[in-house]
Amino acid sequence: MLPIIPELAKKTGSKIILYVMDGMSGLPGPGGKTEMETANLPNMDRLARISECGLIDPVGRGITPGSGPGHLSLFGYNPVENLIGRGALAAAGIGFPIQPGDVAARINFCTLDEKGNIVDRRAGRIPTEKNQELMPKLREIKIPDVEIFCETVREYRSVVIFRGEGLGPDVGDTDPQATGVPPLTAMVLEYASKKTADIANEFIEKAMELLKDESPANGILTRGYSGYPELQTYQELYKLTPAAIATYPMYRGVARFAGMDILGADTIENMDDELSVLEANWEKYDFFFIHYKYTDSRGEDGDFEAKAAELEKADAAIERLLALEPDALAVAGDHTTPAVWKAHSWHASPVLLHGAWCRHDNLAAFTENECARGSLGRFPGWELMPLMLSSAGKLEKYGA
Amino acid sequence: MLPIIPELAKKTGSKIILYVMDGMSGLPGPGGKTEMETANLPNMDRLARISECGLIDPVGRGITPGSGPGHLSLFGYNPVENLIGRGALAAAGIGFPIQPGDVAARINFCTLDEKGNIVDRRAGRIPTEKNQELMPKLREIKIPDVEIFCETVREYRSVVIFRGEGLGPDVGDTDPQATGVPPLTAMVLEYASKKTADIANEFIEKAMELLKDESPANGILTRGYSGYPELQTYQELYKLTPAAIATYPMYRGVARFAGMDILGADTIENMDDELSVLEANWEKYDFFFIHYKYTDSRGEDGDFEAKAAELEKADAAIERLLALEPDALAVAGDHTTPAVWKAHSWHASPVLLHGAWCRHDNLAAFTENECARGSLGRFPGWELMPLMLSSAGKLEKYGA
Repeated sequence: MLPIIPELAKKTGSKIILYVMDGMSGLPGPGGKTEMETANLPNMDRLARISECGLIDPVGRGITPGSGPGHLSLFGYNPVENLIGRGALAAAGIGFPIQPGDVAARINFCTLDEKGNIVDRRAGRIPTEKNQELMPKLREIKIPDVEIFCETVREYRSVVIFRGEGLGPDVGDTDPQATGVPPLTAMVLEYASKKTADIANEFIEKAMELLKDESPANGILTRGYSGYPELQTYQELYKLTPAAIATYPMYRGVARFAGMDILGADTIENMDDELSVLEANWEKYDFFFIHYKYTDSRGEDGDFEAKAAELEKADAAIERLLALEPDALAVAGDHTTPAVWKAHSWHASPVLLHGAWCRHDNLAAFTENECARGSLGRFPGWELMPLMLSSAGKLEKYGA
Repeated sequence: MLPIIPELAKKTGSKIILYVMDGMSGLPGPGGKTEMETANLPNMDRLARISECGLIDPVGRGITPGSGPGHLSLFGYNPVENLIGRGALAAAGIGFPIQPGDVAARINFCTLDEKGNIVDRRAGRIPTEKNQELMPKLREIKIPDVEIFCETVREYRSVVIFRGEGLGPDVGDTDPQATGVPPLTAMVLEYASKKTADIANEFIEKAMELLKDESPANGILTRGYSGYPELQTYQELYKLTPAAIATYPMYRGVARFAGMDILGADTIENMDDELSVLEANWEKYDFFFIHYKYTDSRGEDGDFEAKAAELEKADAAIERLLALEPDALAVAGDHTTPAVWKAHSWHASPVLLHGAWCRHDNLAAFTENECARGSLGRFPGWELMPLMLSSAGKLEKYGA
């Protein structure tokens, strides 16, 4: 479908809001109802009556999406055809401004024995503070002809970004995914990445030397070498001027890959701040992605009641979204995070699409089971994008 | 979708049952209700309340599946991309242990006139007993450098399997699909199959000589030359240890192509036997396909009441399935066989998926119309496999 959409897209003054409640939907809890069925969601329930509703599979039936694929899907990209490499996603996830031409790789601190064999691939899951303590050592490493950025992610995980001419992402992992063996040498997978593999091996050798007296993190493993994702931007695809508002760097990172301006990154701390930034920038953009994080967080915690409470807070925010009178408002989750499962899951996620040119499905509430009866059916997440565009009058007719 | 699944699959101790009622669903009969709506199905109806339900298209909307494609689809293979050739399916269908490297072809007995032109492409639909009488003649045929197996299928239909070095399946049919003309010569469609075409033509020439005084079956036509299907097995795709339990050889054959062990082939005669074999082997496998045949048989007979009665028997079996406490239980049909249509049909077939991590669709019954409202939506049959795997905790998250 996507290939014809850029030809049909037109610039208009209409405005779209994509409101994502991370991990919004769930599974029945102790009382036999899901989090969405348990929470009091007056705004979403009211919208479910006068909107088009359905269920989204972010990646495909039965597939549990990570946050990257889940958001790519809602942003209109098939996440299997447009996978963001682990290194690039890690860089985006901490807000590092990765650029086209950069190559990023995940670094895992590990523990090596005296023979250089891996004892623990995660260095005993060292705390983030220890990781931060080690970072100045890695930052000492200099290699001619390339800029190197090393950043802590969390616990034993870090990221390295190489910047320079003639780099390529086709370099193999040095993590052998096993213990009792030494780390691998970074292999050249495509000849155009030879320089990068050489740099990576030199970087790793120097890092090993600098870390050798540390404990337990006396070595590093690298994986997921990847470049700036080759996504076509919203400007190219849809002639949109898009913006993203999110408290967590990961979601900002993925949004930036799609061409969105990141608003309020240095100031927003909560949903009220996000809404204020949205209101302040309303005139400047025609597409807004706004992200509510804590529904997912409480789901991952396994706290059913707290997740339901977060849904209620997220619901309250809808009043301020509607007050802006968007031409199209989509409310969706990037994946399901059932409190009883305590993690992302594969279950389809409800979605509603509201606007003057949307149908009224007349559903009783915004829940998993009601949306299963909605007019949008169950569909791949990336097909939401053309629905939002058309509902805001931004797509021409196809063919005569 | 499939390409990412093998990377996500993990070996676990959890267990999956895929329970197939052949030709399960139907169309309204004289009373205005379908067979599923007419039958008393307490187990399935109870499950429909506490399971995820939907409708499956085994091949695609509007396509009537044969038994091979219908089962391939439920087994997780797109049956258009993974067609099992007619010869190989015929061999599997009679339980012949076809091997990689074999080439199988369908044989139809036909009637030729004195000039060698075809008068009847099915030899007056000779009874199976006549076919069996002729088989020793075909088995007399010896050709150097190749083993030849000839087996009766049914009525005028038989199958020949060539086994030897350097055979290939790319040989054209000798059935011209017309009368008043002679049979075709078996043509080489790819050069690597030249030896096979030569053997086939020699086999056919000798068969014609041996049959020339018979009546009405004084000749043969061959079609559907095909090799062992190149399916990736469940072991390769999903890290499963799968088993199949079915009374009919055809279903065992297709299951074997997917890598399933065939249990109880020499002993089971009815569903009770099938369930006993399942119970006896419960600890040894993590995926079980169990097949109930007679819903389809009575549908093909056009006997509405008898089909409803078979559904009731099939429903009763569910108690013993649930007693095993599978982590995921899918109940499905491989296609629809409406008694009023007396044959396989193209209509979507209900499916339910039950387990601790499945949603509760709260449907009133397991029927065609209720399942149309289920949360799984209407989907291609091969997407059931990742749903079963995830529901049993056997797929990792995709992407970070």
